[in-house]
Amino acid sequence: MIPKSHPRFVSLMTRELIIEGVKNGITSTQGLIAQGRGEAFDYLIGEKSTDGALAAEKIAAAELLLARRPVISVNGNAAALVPGELIRLGEIVNAPLEVNLFHRTQERVDKIIKHLHSLGAQNLYTKSDALITGIEHERAKVDSDGIFSADVVLVPLEDGDRCKALVDMGKTVIAIDLNPLSRTAQGATVTIVDNIIRAVPNISKFAGELKGLRKEELQEVVMGYDNKKTLSLAIDEVKTNLDSFFANRYISPQ
Amino acid sequence: MIPKSHPRFVSLMTRELIIEGVKNGITSTQGLIAQGRGEAFDYLIGEKSTDGALAAEKIAAAELLLARRPVISVNGNAAALVPGELIRLGEIVNAPLEVNLFHRTQERVDKIIKHLHSLGAQNLYTKSDALITGIEHERAKVDSDGIFSADVVLVPLEDGDRCKALVDMGKTVIAIDLNPLSRTAQGATVTIVDNIIRAVPNISKFAGELKGLRKEELQEVVMGYDNKKTLSLAIDEVKTNLDSFFANRYISPQ
Repeated sequence: MIPKSHPRFVSLMTRELIIEGVKNGITSTQGLIAQGRGEAFDYLIGEKSTDGALAAEKIAAAELLLARRPVISVNGNAAALVPGELIRLGEIVNAPLEVNLFHRTQERVDKIIKHLHSLGAQNLYTKSDALITGIEHERAKVDSDGIFSADVVLVPLEDGDRCKALVDMGKTVIAIDLNPLSRTAQGATVTIVDNIIRAVPNISKFAGELKGLRKEELQEVVMGYDNKKTLSLAIDEVKTNLDSFFANRYISPQ
Repeated sequence: MIPKSHPRFVSLMTRELIIEGVKNGITSTQGLIAQGRGEAFDYLIGEKSTDGALAAEKIAAAELLLARRPVISVNGNAAALVPGELIRLGEIVNAPLEVNLFHRTQERVDKIIKHLHSLGAQNLYTKSDALITGIEHERAKVDSDGIFSADVVLVPLEDGDRCKALVDMGKTVIAIDLNPLSRTAQGATVTIVDNIIRAVPNISKFAGELKGLRKEELQEVVMGYDNKKTLSLAIDEVKTNLDSFFANRYISPQ
């Protein structure tokens, strides 16, 4: 047991959830490596939701509320880390969930669907009867009524090729990615540079606040959004943190 | 099979070696997360041995050659990634290897020893009859003739507490750590901010070149070495890369 007083409690507990996900067959082994990459970038952005991330999370909420057919894509890491939070967000913005794996096996898809059902998910796309164009067959499989037909897709932790393929299909892609330089981050319509465990509740909170607005008012919220600016802010944050962490370690070494 | 032409061939092959290590019981599950963190930082330093890293690798070679009792510590990730390279370095600088695990089980220690033997390692410390002071019992176990008595220890991928404990015992600690802000990086005597798969062969190369020198000449090589400067150079490199990667992605998006 990790004591709550541990300075890295949240990070360590998150890690335990991912390891648990692997044990339960929900998360892939590759997902552990992805988690490690995320830890490094989360550390560099200060393990907090930056102003730039919060701004993108508000845009994401507005886009999901404006969507005609929003879908929330769920992968093995998201299912291990924030299954309940994704279900809750889906309810608030009226977006079904769809399991979509990079290292896809039908067994793992079924396990994740079962897991989401057990946590109360009622609105799930579960077919794999359509293909996203331009990517390798197994990785292209989606539900014809779900991601395939969606106008807005929230993809926590997506890979670069699929992100691009979804954008090329004309969809608004909201990505959650801690690496502001990744192809996903660069290719998405709205990139949330934040840890998924903070990002999803934040989007839900904003969605709750914005839900009462009329369509025109929501359109005003998203108008003029500049994703390049979001990424640039994240990079500036990392650079500032590198200097400040380095300076502070040497003032007060552990 | 990953084609050699893949732009991320080395990174992906390294990942496969770690996954193979987990399957063989050599690497811990936590080692996969550590690998992911390393990938992120390696990406940020440009996936190359920087001038600062090369300078530290040369110092490391000189320190190992100057040592009366050098030891190379081997953990689960190092054993999966560079077992042969560590054996070779040990032969060049006359340093035995000692298996030393953060997530220690006797079974995994034995598997790694067997693995190293099968690859030709002849000089191994295998007892666990002494304790490093100031850290938790299981993690403190070392060989009384090995790390416990060493004057210079090379610790690829060490954790912060143990690095500090070894330094507190008066040892010269050479760490290989891709995160220039980690407690290990900050606490070691010589920090090599480089990927272990590049760092170990580099140290061997420098050791081969320096081997003919007299003791006084080696002492001149290490004299005035400033580890804080090494770390500062690594941080500057990351900052420069952040700007240049960001700029270039936008000039030529994938």
